Amino acid sequence: MTTETADISALYDAQAEQIHRDYFEFLSFPSVSTEPDHAHDVLACKEWLEAKLKQIGLTVETWETEGYPTLFAEDLRAGPDKPTLLLYNHYDVQPVDPLEEWISPPFEPTVRDGQVYARGASDNKGQCFYVWLGLRFLYEKYGKLPINVKWVIEGEEESGSHGLGQLMQQKRDRLQADHLALVDVDMRDANTPTVVLGCRGIVTFELEAIGSKGDLHSGLMGGIAYNPLHAVVEVLSQLHDQKGKVTIPGFYDGIEAMSEEERELIDFSFDQAACRKSFSVEATGGEQEYSPNERAWIRPTLEINGIGGGYFKEGFKTVIPAKVIAKISCRLVPGQDPRAIQEKVIHFIQEKSPTGVEIKVKALHGNGRGYRADANAPVTQAAASAYESVFGKPCIRVLSGGSLPIIHELAEASGADTVGMGVALPDDAIHAPNEHFGLDRLKQGCCLIAQFVLELEKAR
Amino acid sequence: MTTETADISALYDAQAEQIHRDYFEFLSFPSVSTEPDHAHDVLACKEWLEAKLKQIGLTVETWETEGYPTLFAEDLRAGPDKPTLLLYNHYDVQPVDPLEEWISPPFEPTVRDGQVYARGASDNKGQCFYVWLGLRFLYEKYGKLPINVKWVIEGEEESGSHGLGQLMQQKRDRLQADHLALVDVDMRDANTPTVVLGCRGIVTFELEAIGSKGDLHSGLMGGIAYNPLHAVVEVLSQLHDQKGKVTIPGFYDGIEAMSEEERELIDFSFDQAACRKSFSVEATGGEQEYSPNERAWIRPTLEINGIGGGYFKEGFKTVIPAKVIAKISCRLVPGQDPRAIQEKVIHFIQEKSPTGVEIKVKALHGNGRGYRADANAPVTQAAASAYESVFGKPCIRVLSGGSLPIIHELAEASGADTVGMGVALPDDAIHAPNEHFGLDRLKQGCCLIAQFVLELEKAR
Repeated sequence: MTTETADISALYDAQAEQIHRDYFEFLSFPSVSTEPDHAHDVLACKEWLEAKLKQIGLTVETWETEGYPTLFAEDLRAGPDKPTLLLYNHYDVQPVDPLEEWISPPFEPTVRDGQVYARGASDNKGQCFYVWLGLRFLYEKYGKLPINVKWVIEGEEESGSHGLGQLMQQKRDRLQADHLALVDVDMRDANTPTVVLGCRGIVTFELEAIGSKGDLHSGLMGGIAYNPLHAVVEVLSQLHDQKGKVTIPGFYDGIEAMSEEERELIDFSFDQAACRKSFSVEATGGEQEYSPNERAWIRPTLEINGIGGGYFKEGFKTVIPAKVIAKISCRLVPGQDPRAIQEKVIHFIQEKSPTGVEIKVKALHGNGRGYRADANAPVTQAAASAYESVFGKPCIRVLSGGSLPIIHELAEASGADTVGMGVALPDDAIHAPNEHFGLDRLKQGCCLIAQFVLELEKAR
Repeated sequence: MTTETADISALYDAQAEQIHRDYFEFLSFPSVSTEPDHAHDVLACKEWLEAKLKQIGLTVETWETEGYPTLFAEDLRAGPDKPTLLLYNHYDVQPVDPLEEWISPPFEPTVRDGQVYARGASDNKGQCFYVWLGLRFLYEKYGKLPINVKWVIEGEEESGSHGLGQLMQQKRDRLQADHLALVDVDMRDANTPTVVLGCRGIVTFELEAIGSKGDLHSGLMGGIAYNPLHAVVEVLSQLHDQKGKVTIPGFYDGIEAMSEEERELIDFSFDQAACRKSFSVEATGGEQEYSPNERAWIRPTLEINGIGGGYFKEGFKTVIPAKVIAKISCRLVPGQDPRAIQEKVIHFIQEKSPTGVEIKVKALHGNGRGYRADANAPVTQAAASAYESVFGKPCIRVLSGGSLPIIHELAEASGADTVGMGVALPDDAIHAPNEHFGLDRLKQGCCLIAQFVLELEKAR
């Protein structure tokens, strides 16, 4: 641990009680952005946070959008000779359903075994709050911030980031930065400091297979009508070959190769035992010629996300359904053009429609490119050093198979090198009942952010 | 029209008003056998029918079962020198959902344009009631029945005929007959008298594909986990080849060939224009080397009846489902052994399970063999003659692609030659809202049954 980190840690300890009270207050706002009934709560949460940001010395603007506003805080007093860091968090939270599975009420933060149970405790209020703590203790210790800081905190992350998406162009000048840190990811486990260097893009599709104008009797019409369920399994089964490769012509076109040097920096190791324990999953999906994390991180995939047609509940109905629905998504990696992929997928499926069943496919929302940051950028080095100082362990670099559409847009708008960081854990139960976050990690996160900012000053 | 038919017709006309009142009374019982709330109504309907049967001179027994009772009426006074006819009908009806789509209440029979609208108006109370009328007018005209008659009227046809199935063995002696007529089928159209000489058997299956212990995120786990939806489409797409043939080894084993002579008696013609108009269906399903009605009547089929897994409603969820359900049924033709088919289907599917997804298949209820009656049997000739007398048109012989599990068991238990007959029509909306039956057909049916009994006396 560096002296600086030790000092921040001591400042935290001296005020731990008040810190917890503030954190709990933040968690008590039901700022559920997807539920219109909570509109007032989302805005009240924004007000509370805005006051907190001002309190430590940041100047704050409320950027209105068609949905909930984005808070934009900054302190550029370090001056043009110093680098500028852009931080990203969000103050909205996921819905709480199923409510009955919560052991304590989701908006009454409750501590059990050192864990704070509340919606948003981890995603993303916990991580947002320790960023605030980290900046605050830098102010307290040094009287100012050592570098220029900009901070975007949006209110619609859980409902699609539409407002922030619109602000990207409009506020491009204001978002300019040298370094960008999205504090909205987790570590591999509690003892493995982790920076996230990229994620996959996404495009989604809906397929409708229509066979007749009403459901048919499978005895009277079985052998006469072409069953749309048959059409769907026939068409969808052709999307992959036996080695797990997507068969759509041109699907893998343009993928940016990863340099050997870059590949060596990223920790592709995969813990099959942990995967089996958490999910009962053997890593047998995807392209057989790649390792599990290569398949999930640097290779695109096509997954069927749903099929619904006919009767599939308890009992039996001898039906040939009039219509079958399927949902499909593709995760994309850098170099793949989302629009080209949409066209290829639609063309491939529609070409395979059998006579007697009409198959319609349309692309849904989402047009997200894959994103991969420079594994050697100063911001990554600074994050890694800060992690190592706080945890006393080497930091690994990973990618994510998921999609954070905002990462690509923010990176582009800011022109900054980008890193994903955070001290959340995979088992924090984010998006699930009994979400929680350790009080120990609130402190670790606070120290991490303070140290990260200090490292960035050195990096320049 | 024969003189006998003309006389029956005159008797009907003289009492038409009272006949309609009785028919409407029968229809007003909500004898829905699948809904426990209607238990009292089903039994009340049975009581009403029992009294009606006694009223015309039949002796009646109530055969109790684990479910609703079967009524057994008989008159053997024609004596051992005369043939014995066994008739089959049912007094229970389908549920009425969706109730809001009924133009008039389903248990308040309402006449519009000569059609009686009510649940059961056609299936099977209408057809049951005109059998009663036919016998009644024979009593009125001749003072007795010209042949021996036995009549089974069950109360569980719409819920699986379980009780009657058990009675088959127990009451085997009582069911012995020379001729068996199931008055529970329809004519091809209003101007085409039709006898049904057989139907397909059925076996049903449920498939469960299990991939993980909970739903997975398709970004984080896509490319790592084997998606059970992929497993399901891959396995189910292998059940048919490109020519529509079922690929399961041995599926077509043992099928009884149809003689050229038999084939010529059966009208295999298929009306593509009518099929397009009624269902928007082109006959592109099934085995390409056979004609549509061959495919539906004398060839077995395998249909997927449902697939449900993941998210398929409005919007999108990037999920890899933990579990997928599929339902499958096979329609069987004479010579196929249902138990052997069950084993072959289960074996074939389980063998195809990919590593990482567990596919479980089980056979559900239903163990029905296909059935085909002798197209030249006296009972068929008598039915055809009776139709021709009433309609003045030649009678066609067809098969049904559907399944009437009871036909096989009743034919076997009675030792009788068998025919399916009736004056219902394909567009009576049986099992659907606004079921209806023409008052003209009630009279045609009455004449048909009386003439049929008279023909059977001559046939001996």
